[in-house]
Amino acid sequence: MSDTKTLIENINKALSDYLEPRYPEKIYEAMGYSVMAGGKRLRPVLVLLACRAAGGKDEDAMPFACAMEMIHTYSLIHDDLPAMDNDDLRRGRPTCHKQFDEATAILAGDCLLGYAFETMLDKASEDFDKKYVKAMKVIAQLSGTKGMLVGQVVDVDSEGKKISAETLEYIHRNKTGGLIKAALMAGGIIGGADEDTVNLLESIGEDVGLAFQIKDDILDVTSTAEVLGKPILSDEKNEKVTYVSLYGLEKAQQEYLRITNSALENTKKLGEAAKPLYDYIASLTDRIK
Amino acid sequence: MSDTKTLIENINKALSDYLEPRYPEKIYEAMGYSVMAGGKRLRPVLVLLACRAAGGKDEDAMPFACAMEMIHTYSLIHDDLPAMDNDDLRRGRPTCHKQFDEATAILAGDCLLGYAFETMLDKASEDFDKKYVKAMKVIAQLSGTKGMLVGQVVDVDSEGKKISAETLEYIHRNKTGGLIKAALMAGGIIGGADEDTVNLLESIGEDVGLAFQIKDDILDVTSTAEVLGKPILSDEKNEKVTYVSLYGLEKAQQEYLRITNSALENTKKLGEAAKPLYDYIASLTDRIK
Repeated sequence: MSDTKTLIENINKALSDYLEPRYPEKIYEAMGYSVMAGGKRLRPVLVLLACRAAGGKDEDAMPFACAMEMIHTYSLIHDDLPAMDNDDLRRGRPTCHKQFDEATAILAGDCLLGYAFETMLDKASEDFDKKYVKAMKVIAQLSGTKGMLVGQVVDVDSEGKKISAETLEYIHRNKTGGLIKAALMAGGIIGGADEDTVNLLESIGEDVGLAFQIKDDILDVTSTAEVLGKPILSDEKNEKVTYVSLYGLEKAQQEYLRITNSALENTKKLGEAAKPLYDYIASLTDRIK
Repeated sequence: MSDTKTLIENINKALSDYLEPRYPEKIYEAMGYSVMAGGKRLRPVLVLLACRAAGGKDEDAMPFACAMEMIHTYSLIHDDLPAMDNDDLRRGRPTCHKQFDEATAILAGDCLLGYAFETMLDKASEDFDKKYVKAMKVIAQLSGTKGMLVGQVVDVDSEGKKISAETLEYIHRNKTGGLIKAALMAGGIIGGADEDTVNLLESIGEDVGLAFQIKDDILDVTSTAEVLGKPILSDEKNEKVTYVSLYGLEKAQQEYLRITNSALENTKKLGEAAKPLYDYIASLTDRIK
């Protein structure tokens, strides 16, 4: 775990360098406010550890790790907007549109998405290698029309409706799962993984993403607002269909453990170099927020 | 001009293929509604003609031409939102958030930006060549933190303020000029242009972008709502500083012609293959909307 702490420090340092304020300052302030608000840095850590698991170097994967966090943050800023989830709090602080204003929040999200590609393309042009194009393609698709965004579209469209278990899974596999899969696959690709390994990473990502979401649903009913930094029981209040509302708390917890174990079994197959990735995924089972 | 008509038809065909509805249909409907609303296709035409001017083929540049139109449309959808310009009409039809709803408009914009990169990365991975990475980098920067988005940020921030001529130029050079420069440069790069030629295309783009914006300012006071498909005299109503309000109509018209001529002089330097590009830029001086 102390290694993860160092990783997160390195990620935060790199992110803060990328987001150093310049003209027009307000937009960099808004981007920095949201990106530097803390958080687990789950996606960038997965990029770096998957890259290591495939035998690659942190420095090659770092721009992609930071890009993933920028994309994740842009999606949170836009999700929080009044026209979407209308959330006032995120990680215990006012959301971007509350701290600044709506126009700034829309633009900060747009900027972060664009800046993620600028960041990856800087690396891809100074160190021209097909693996970077492949990694960008995976990230573009899984954050876009083959992942996160379509999951979000169906999620918004399902609000207040009694959706099926299939639709719930579609939402989570894409909305949360998209970026987590992209992180593991892009990290592996940059580390030099062959196709079979990338496929294995994809399936690990699928499991980790689903497990992560089930845990979120569980914490919403078992944690406190102080620990989570956001209101609890919000799913019930918003009449949201979740794993807990569909299957009950006990079955959701069982499913969570089953999927986590499946991810760990597959990570073992990646061999010795994937030990830090294995430990990290194992550590996620203990998360309390 | 008949050649431009064919070009626009080809662009529209390609865009409509890219945006063919699939699950979740609503977001493709919203993207298609805004992208296929007509418009001059200025940016994609410039990509294709700059590519031809550099000796390249339309088929190589087409994904980038379409990506430019997706990025342009995403920026219009987000600009029209209630928190931004709060416009109800665009090209004579309800804006995206009026036709659908705000959440859908925000997501349709996000999707179009992401999809633009998916589209370019598809081409860049099936036909691996450094020129595509270079073109993507130019487009990412000039639509992002080195162009369109920072121009838009300063524009939003200037609303209701008496801004200086320098700030007005910063806004236009970036907000409108960013994508037009990117179109010409990316087209040239894909066509195989050397560095000097790309620099010349950049300077042509600078002029065309500025001329385009001055013309917009002029049309806002000299045209009719029927011809423009949007309200006239909106700049005055919104107390917006424009070239016309700063310099008066006559001087704005003179400046428009001076800059257009500078663009045409530079286009001549590109030689015989740039004749269609020259004719197209010349034709822009006649535009009435």
